[in-house]
Amino acid sequence: MTAVLPLALRSAKESVEPTLRSAVARLDVDTRRVAEYHFGWSDVHGAPTDAGGKALRPAMALAATEIACGEPELGVAGAAAVELVHNFSLLHDDVMDGDTSRRHRPTAWTAFGSSAAILAGDALLAVAPEVLLESASPHASVAVRSLSATTRVLIAGQAADLDFEKRTDVDLTECLSMAHDKTAALLACACSIGPLSAGAPRGKVRALHGYGTELGMAFQLVDDLLGLWGDPEVTGKPVLSDLRTRKKSVPVVHALTSGTTAGERLSELYEQTEPLTEEQLHEAAEMVRRAGSEDWTRRECRRRLERAEAALEAGSLGDTAALGELAEFIVRRKL
Amino acid sequence: MTAVLPLALRSAKESVEPTLRSAVARLDVDTRRVAEYHFGWSDVHGAPTDAGGKALRPAMALAATEIACGEPELGVAGAAAVELVHNFSLLHDDVMDGDTSRRHRPTAWTAFGSSAAILAGDALLAVAPEVLLESASPHASVAVRSLSATTRVLIAGQAADLDFEKRTDVDLTECLSMAHDKTAALLACACSIGPLSAGAPRGKVRALHGYGTELGMAFQLVDDLLGLWGDPEVTGKPVLSDLRTRKKSVPVVHALTSGTTAGERLSELYEQTEPLTEEQLHEAAEMVRRAGSEDWTRRECRRRLERAEAALEAGSLGDTAALGELAEFIVRRKL
Repeated sequence: MTAVLPLALRSAKESVEPTLRSAVARLDVDTRRVAEYHFGWSDVHGAPTDAGGKALRPAMALAATEIACGEPELGVAGAAAVELVHNFSLLHDDVMDGDTSRRHRPTAWTAFGSSAAILAGDALLAVAPEVLLESASPHASVAVRSLSATTRVLIAGQAADLDFEKRTDVDLTECLSMAHDKTAALLACACSIGPLSAGAPRGKVRALHGYGTELGMAFQLVDDLLGLWGDPEVTGKPVLSDLRTRKKSVPVVHALTSGTTAGERLSELYEQTEPLTEEQLHEAAEMVRRAGSEDWTRRECRRRLERAEAALEAGSLGDTAALGELAEFIVRRKL
Repeated sequence: MTAVLPLALRSAKESVEPTLRSAVARLDVDTRRVAEYHFGWSDVHGAPTDAGGKALRPAMALAATEIACGEPELGVAGAAAVELVHNFSLLHDDVMDGDTSRRHRPTAWTAFGSSAAILAGDALLAVAPEVLLESASPHASVAVRSLSATTRVLIAGQAADLDFEKRTDVDLTECLSMAHDKTAALLACACSIGPLSAGAPRGKVRALHGYGTELGMAFQLVDDLLGLWGDPEVTGKPVLSDLRTRKKSVPVVHALTSGTTAGERLSELYEQTEPLTEEQLHEAAEMVRRAGSEDWTRRECRRRLERAEAALEAGSLGDTAALGELAEFIVRRKL
């Protein structure tokens, strides 16, 4: 997959990683080790590795800043701050969800214990405003407020996700709202925080925020399809992983609430107390298809991408090819 | 105990609680409920109660702001932000330490589950910079940076505390450093954040920060003595509670590293695999006394209070009686 990584991703990593590393270097030695492991910079023993994530949000932040302000470097602090908040949420979500593997490695709590992972997440959240306010931009505090507000939305999304696990009556509106809170809100922040902290005109900031929201929804829908039919080599998760854990993802909830016979059968399988057998997993996936939910999700994904384009055009932003290339990469991930 | 509460504590609660409540009101409904329960504003079902904490840090923040700037109201945002960070740390520490009771009620994680308590802590941490930056003071961002740096120290302290549980070779210097990080650093921030965000002269801010550090150390030493010989009615914890959990508090570590026969006997008890019997608990407490560690802790506490006074005097702050009354209350809590 590395071969098709857009240049923007590689160069964002290079531009933003020094800021991230210097933020993490301020943490106490124990917490720093957990954070560096989580970022893929070191192994469990602290030896350097190169297993980092894709730096998607930093890349969006830099591309958006370049488009709105002409200078991508003005977005570095915002890009780093968003990446810190993103990784705070990954560290804590993995503890809450009991997920044992991420980016083909044991999750931080699996390697270091829950307490250490909670503290590492706390530390990344605490350090994010510092990174922004050190940038000496007179608009940094507006950016911090935007990031804090986004973090509240992220937390609301995770709270909803946990709540959904206990319920059998989740409807599609709630489910899409959760997808917005957990994914789209931070992508919207990533696309707007650089321009915001650089003092770009309000209309441009708003357009990029709207773009990020719609793109984030598309991103989450693709992710939901990958959770059902994604190649384990690509996703790092077993086939039909979301069905195994009976996750209430968008296509699943669409099927469950479709009023079709396939949806009813899927409900039966989701309410079964015992773990689903391999045969039942394949049957469940087939029910999502038959309920028309795979098609609906793909159509919704395309609709969101069109809305993203429209949001961008409304901002009179000139050449937005750099963002387009990243968007393309995000939604064309192999299914 | 309510009868002896200094006026400053009651009035700080009245001044700061509206800001705290409006910050918490921004959270999603699930997280908000957990936070309101934790703050003692509601019961598990969301019905209003009045079981809140003492608002010690807000009271210090307002008193310090009045002393440095003449107007306590200038410290309200800082006081609220520090209280949010303090409660973030309580929520997360209770999860990590497995503590089931706080302020005579079940802890938030006991009532709502670990995930909900983790999210509530996250939300309080996320909202703290927002509260400061909304205050419209041109110095708010300096205050946010100070609060973020303090939060990192707090996290370092909790990481050290968890590390100590696994070790048998903790020395007194490390132990005092942990007490600084877990307690004194946030009290120093409480005493300086109001003046800092109001743009008070640097010398005054520094003096108040120094005062808070020393007072915080004294506060922690009193707390450690209460953990050994505190009245359960006052502490809300069983007698000899720190010995039951074999906590490595300052007097305990002083005894363990005292090179005395009593210290050696205490080591044996602390290294025993089975839970300590009531008789052994009383023996352990007696060993702390015989090692001279109760006396040493009391003396160290007095020394810290003298240093706190000296720090205050160095700041040429005029009438500091309001802070003095609070300090008195803190360290004279019934043993």
